[in-house]
Amino acid sequence: MSSDAGSDRGLLSPVWAGTEVEAVTADDAWLRAMLEAEVCLARAQARLGVVPERAVAAIAEAAGALSSGEDRYDAADLARRARDAGNPVVPLVKDLRAAAGEAGSWVHHGATSQDILDTAAMLVAARARETILRDLGRVLAALARLAGEHRDTPMAGRTLGQQAVPTTFGLKAAGWLVGCRDGRDRLAAVRLPVQLGGAAGTMAGYGERALDLLPLFAAETGLAEPVLPWHTLRTPVTDLACALAAVTGALGKLATDVILLAQSEVGEVAEPAAPGRGGSSAMAHKRNPVLATMIRSAALQAPALAQILLASQMAEHERPAGSWHAEWQPLRECLRLAGGAAETAAELAEGLEVFPERMRHNLDHLLAVLAEHGEDPGVGSASVLVDRALQHHQGKAS
Amino acid sequence: MSSDAGSDRGLLSPVWAGTEVEAVTADDAWLRAMLEAEVCLARAQARLGVVPERAVAAIAEAAGALSSGEDRYDAADLARRARDAGNPVVPLVKDLRAAAGEAGSWVHHGATSQDILDTAAMLVAARARETILRDLGRVLAALARLAGEHRDTPMAGRTLGQQAVPTTFGLKAAGWLVGCRDGRDRLAAVRLPVQLGGAAGTMAGYGERALDLLPLFAAETGLAEPVLPWHTLRTPVTDLACALAAVTGALGKLATDVILLAQSEVGEVAEPAAPGRGGSSAMAHKRNPVLATMIRSAALQAPALAQILLASQMAEHERPAGSWHAEWQPLRECLRLAGGAAETAAELAEGLEVFPERMRHNLDHLLAVLAEHGEDPGVGSASVLVDRALQHHQGKAS
Amino acid sequence: MSSDAGSDRGLLSPVWAGTEVEAVTADDAWLRAMLEAEVCLARAQARLGVVPERAVAAIAEAAGALSSGEDRYDAADLARRARDAGNPVVPLVKDLRAAAGEAGSWVHHGATSQDILDTAAMLVAARARETILRDLGRVLAALARLAGEHRDTPMAGRTLGQQAVPTTFGLKAAGWLVGCRDGRDRLAAVRLPVQLGGAAGTMAGYGERALDLLPLFAAETGLAEPVLPWHTLRTPVTDLACALAAVTGALGKLATDVILLAQSEVGEVAEPAAPGRGGSSAMAHKRNPVLATMIRSAALQAPALAQILLASQMAEHERPAGSWHAEWQPLRECLRLAGGAAETAAELAEGLEVFPERMRHNLDHLLAVLAEHGEDPGVGSASVLVDRALQHHQGKAS
Amino acid sequence: MSSDAGSDRGLLSPVWAGTEVEAVTADDAWLRAMLEAEVCLARAQARLGVVPERAVAAIAEAAGALSSGEDRYDAADLARRARDAGNPVVPLVKDLRAAAGEAGSWVHHGATSQDILDTAAMLVAARARETILRDLGRVLAALARLAGEHRDTPMAGRTLGQQAVPTTFGLKAAGWLVGCRDGRDRLAAVRLPVQLGGAAGTMAGYGERALDLLPLFAAETGLAEPVLPWHTLRTPVTDLACALAAVTGALGKLATDVILLAQSEVGEVAEPAAPGRGGSSAMAHKRNPVLATMIRSAALQAPALAQILLASQMAEHERPAGSWHAEWQPLRECLRLAGGAAETAAELAEGLEVFPERMRHNLDHLLAVLAEHGEDPGVGSASVLVDRALQHHQGKAS
Repeated sequence: MSSDAGSDRGLLSPVWAGTEVEAVTADDAWLRAMLEAEVCLARAQARLGVVPERAVAAIAEAAGALSSGEDRYDAADLARRARDAGNPVVPLVKDLRAAAGEAGSWVHHGATSQDILDTAAMLVAARARETILRDLGRVLAALARLAGEHRDTPMAGRTLGQQAVPTTFGLKAAGWLVGCRDGRDRLAAVRLPVQLGGAAGTMAGYGERALDLLPLFAAETGLAEPVLPWHTLRTPVTDLACALAAVTGALGKLATDVILLAQSEVGEVAEPAAPGRGGSSAMAHKRNPVLATMIRSAALQAPALAQILLASQMAEHERPAGSWHAEWQPLRECLRLAGGAAETAAELAEGLEVFPERMRHNLDHLLAVLAEHGEDPGVGSASVLVDRALQHHQGKAS
Repeated sequence: MSSDAGSDRGLLSPVWAGTEVEAVTADDAWLRAMLEAEVCLARAQARLGVVPERAVAAIAEAAGALSSGEDRYDAADLARRARDAGNPVVPLVKDLRAAAGEAGSWVHHGATSQDILDTAAMLVAARARETILRDLGRVLAALARLAGEHRDTPMAGRTLGQQAVPTTFGLKAAGWLVGCRDGRDRLAAVRLPVQLGGAAGTMAGYGERALDLLPLFAAETGLAEPVLPWHTLRTPVTDLACALAAVTGALGKLATDVILLAQSEVGEVAEPAAPGRGGSSAMAHKRNPVLATMIRSAALQAPALAQILLASQMAEHERPAGSWHAEWQPLRECLRLAGGAAETAAELAEGLEVFPERMRHNLDHLLAVLAEHGEDPGVGSASVLVDRALQHHQGKAS
Repeated sequence: MSSDAGSDRGLLSPVWAGTEVEAVTADDAWLRAMLEAEVCLARAQARLGVVPERAVAAIAEAAGALSSGEDRYDAADLARRARDAGNPVVPLVKDLRAAAGEAGSWVHHGATSQDILDTAAMLVAARARETILRDLGRVLAALARLAGEHRDTPMAGRTLGQQAVPTTFGLKAAGWLVGCRDGRDRLAAVRLPVQLGGAAGTMAGYGERALDLLPLFAAETGLAEPVLPWHTLRTPVTDLACALAAVTGALGKLATDVILLAQSEVGEVAEPAAPGRGGSSAMAHKRNPVLATMIRSAALQAPALAQILLASQMAEHERPAGSWHAEWQPLRECLRLAGGAAETAAELAEGLEVFPERMRHNLDHLLAVLAEHGEDPGVGSASVLVDRALQHHQGKAS
Repeated sequence: MSSDAGSDRGLLSPVWAGTEVEAVTADDAWLRAMLEAEVCLARAQARLGVVPERAVAAIAEAAGALSSGEDRYDAADLARRARDAGNPVVPLVKDLRAAAGEAGSWVHHGATSQDILDTAAMLVAARARETILRDLGRVLAALARLAGEHRDTPMAGRTLGQQAVPTTFGLKAAGWLVGCRDGRDRLAAVRLPVQLGGAAGTMAGYGERALDLLPLFAAETGLAEPVLPWHTLRTPVTDLACALAAVTGALGKLATDVILLAQSEVGEVAEPAAPGRGGSSAMAHKRNPVLATMIRSAALQAPALAQILLASQMAEHERPAGSWHAEWQPLRECLRLAGGAAETAAELAEGLEVFPERMRHNLDHLLAVLAEHGEDPGVGSASVLVDRALQHHQGKAS
């Protein structure tokens, strides 16, 4: 066990522990993104002739040395030194300047901490988004397959926990598909811009050609160009928060249904079996829906975290005293919860076991009740709705 | 004072009391929207030949009589009877059937409560949105004017509450403009679909041509057509929630800055004066920033309400036992807070008093400090950024 | 239908529509509480000789006339006029002064709006609490009876939705009892103080004997005496918020279990039957768990509202510009949700139907599985734990 | 830089990075607490003669070896393996059993994962609480000193951002004191019980003397004894959540006022100066209120996290599928935010610089305005209220 008591590795967050999104959002990933923001800024400035090319090379090398680890760098130490300024960019810039030697004076030229940290946040978000979209792609493909395969598999529809009228498992899967598709589309649509405002958003430190620097900086980072510096115009963050909560919620709907359908007394689906999976520390006979449970644990947290980010819109003046600082950890956690839920849901959806006979068995009970009341609704347009959902998905995917 | 103790009129919500959005989201407006949904459904069904034209006329008349008030109808009574079924559609349908006489059997034909209530919610949202967008339009126009007029008015930029470097009031107003524009665009983009699923989302009750009914129902109501019934796919609600929180937050940013700039010791802006406005019950000399205060009171509530709606995504099976029912009041309140904040902000932005001399005075103090440190940043690209923001706004508006 | 479009009667909140807590928290109840605060203040001041006794009588009469309704008073009008000052006390004081004639100058003597509104909020909370505690008493009694009657009724214990090992329905009911008891105890323990600070919390307007006025005012209102004016020290509000969320959550746990146990495939309990109760607008055969559904709808909202109140602690200076104003509606809604949930839960718990045979039937399936694995855990200490819970409850109740 | 991408060290949370509360709530601290829970359980069982004394020694040694680190143990690996069961206890028990050799079969005897994890959470909370209470003690002492020293220091009272009437800095500090005292008292009062329920809360696995085991287990751990197993009765967690939010909010009030009073245009207080403290990466002349900013960043997050915990009350059946799992990370973060805020606030309060002359200067402006209106309120009972607050604090402290 490390003597460094502060090191966390996801022990309390099984939904994302060891997943790819954890790695791309870890402290180290944020540090690398901050260094990358500094290097990209210097590169963009060099293209305008503001920073000497030679300095850029030295800065890039210093940043690379830092980000590859080794002696000069200590993440926990930077975190602590961040307390002096309230953010980690200040000590990082100091270290980077020292590492860059003579080129050090060109590090962070014209910039403010928020330019670097916000840009880094967008870089981290962009990478996490790639991961999440890829896993959502797996989820969508698996759900589309389930919807198609079970297009005509009848089962009991349930409202307020009561068997209501027949539906099909295909329609249920099609619903999950459309819900997750909505989430995916919203996340894919979020614009992730660079931040470039200087001390108070006037770009003063960037010189006379500051506006020209903006597209160059955007190009270097691969991020979008904002209309204005968004130090206290937090649309990128709130858009991201809402999209991530939408994704997590759509996955949470899937997970909730799986848990209910997998109940001992219902038994219509089961999670994919795997050695050691779903075990209980007390009951050898149980097979717990652990994938769905972990997904739900994410979906139960994401809305509250999104709320912190929504509330951060009320950022005062040109930089707020607290609400910006309150964004970082909730934003990371939203990315992780969405990413962990997506990776977990991919495994769930791809391996979900479906038991049409049990569905039929449970449905027969309902049909008998309905017959007593002289009702016989059938499954209505369920199959056609499945086709419609698949076409919608394919149309968007093509 | 009414003997009906349960009647509320906005006493605890000055931000929207008496505003237009209050009226279009009131209990009566929801009731009218539910009746309208029933009438539109019958009309659409008549176009398919499912419901007799004569019945439609009778239903429309009965709904009109109900919605115009009079003897047959009692809102408080309906609210109480809603407790038997958990939602107000059940007793309303009963009353409407009774009022429609022989045509009563065609009322709510094939429908489930959620089809009507969700469609009504979208109708209410559509009307509230019109109001909100119109008031946001006023806000945007006023902010664009302020940004233009004060394009070159220098003032102190402030970060973490401290004077930092110079900026311009034009850039500050341009920031408010871009933030509010983002909120407006997100709200305008939300798709508001009809709900049409029947008992459990299979559209079974709507007969063989159920899919044909969907566009007809959408056309009658003026709402959009969904891919699938969204009884438990709550994207329309979460999209709305996020957009309304985005709007309220952007207005909250404006209000927060106004309150800070209007502080006695800063004095750079003042709220529009009006007889009786901003008075204190204890202090005759004070002029309180009440418009901004009310806007902030909305922005402090909306994210938490949006969160309830985000969390409602985890709706179980084909209709949830509680999370759907938990949406209605928070959704209305989000609409009201956004609408009340927008109407209040229109008044604030249109009448905001700006004091360039005081800005200059405060800035001089900062410039002196900067000079001591040998710094002279100027306002950088502030004026060009203002132009850029105005072009962005006009480009979108055109 | 009233021509006053802004009038709400709980149409979107079946959980509290028509319940007692709705009446005691309605706009009119708040108005009466504000008037009562003014009258109590005048009375307390009269006891110190600050206000003439004759004036008190005139003020009380004017307040009574106002609160009994009639011509001079219009709730919707007051709500709108509240927009000028940001709170409803300012216009109310104006009307009360006018109504009190010559005594008018003694109305609101030395007071600030927040003294009256906060005191009124505590009066409203005190009355709502009485109602809630009474209904919680019914809930607790019914749950204690269920726990005792079913002390030894075996059923399947379920974890993560899976049958796990046997338990008893008595222990389940005992758990609900202890949870609701915790909620009740927390609510009962909340201290509800008067507010008395004057313009900025120094009590300056109340004269030299201001500290002597405090206990007199507390005595007149029946509320507690605070250590300091709490204009921006919001402990009474946050304590209340947390206790109300605790109550609603404990009731939500009960409701969640009832919904799960009442599922068609489980069938171990049913909600009390009543004519017209639990009906569906689409399905004649269904009996929906509507009481539990309404309770859950409350429990899904209360935490987010409590959060608004918790966040309001960060009230700036001597009165905040927005966060105080953001408290009123969420506080009322928390009271209503807790009260509506408690009244609904009383009906649910008192009439809950329990089906031991079905429990036995479901348990037999589990026991067969356990036997296959060579496990036979029995119900352990379930019965003794029931006794322990009942003793805890009775010990506290005695 | 570590090759382990998942390792976090507080980089995004300056408010608690490097503070004591970080260490006592880190992944390793949770692991040690889980191991301690297992050892305490075995010890308590040995006192009942259920587990052999010899086995206890072996288990304790194995746990010690594990918790001291070394070869057998890998935190990141455990976190990943937690995904199979949805919680980290299952793999930890496996490792502990292996490490305990022949005594391994006595590890986790009769227990369920939740018994260990919930007990561990309470152990972690107990240690974090000690830290928080100690730092709150420092805050209270410093605030009491400030209140006493400035008992009669006049300043402008401010409402809605406007100078209102005079108050004293002593009364302001006394208000902070009473608010923080309230938070402290609530946190100190929270009962932290062991969890001991076995597979489904019947204590079946613990044998016939299970109820006798409860006080022994409580004694071994130093925690309280619950009425019932609280697997799905989450009062200990919600009590903790509310108290931590109360603490963080009270500190947030202090921080908010400090930021406002330290504004360039107000200048009535300043944060304690320290080398490198409050620097800006862009502006050499600035002295940012970073301590208060970090405290506010905590207070802006805690209510939303508390809300997740409040919502977790609705835990289904005997163990919920998701809401329990959603508690762990928010609970830790609440502890950290409260602890980080408290440690930061201690430094802030102990070193706060107060500028009575500047207060006087700002007040003179207000007095001139008041004189124009013929008002002269004085500071009322401010000084007596300070005495009252100090007596309240000392009375409680003695």
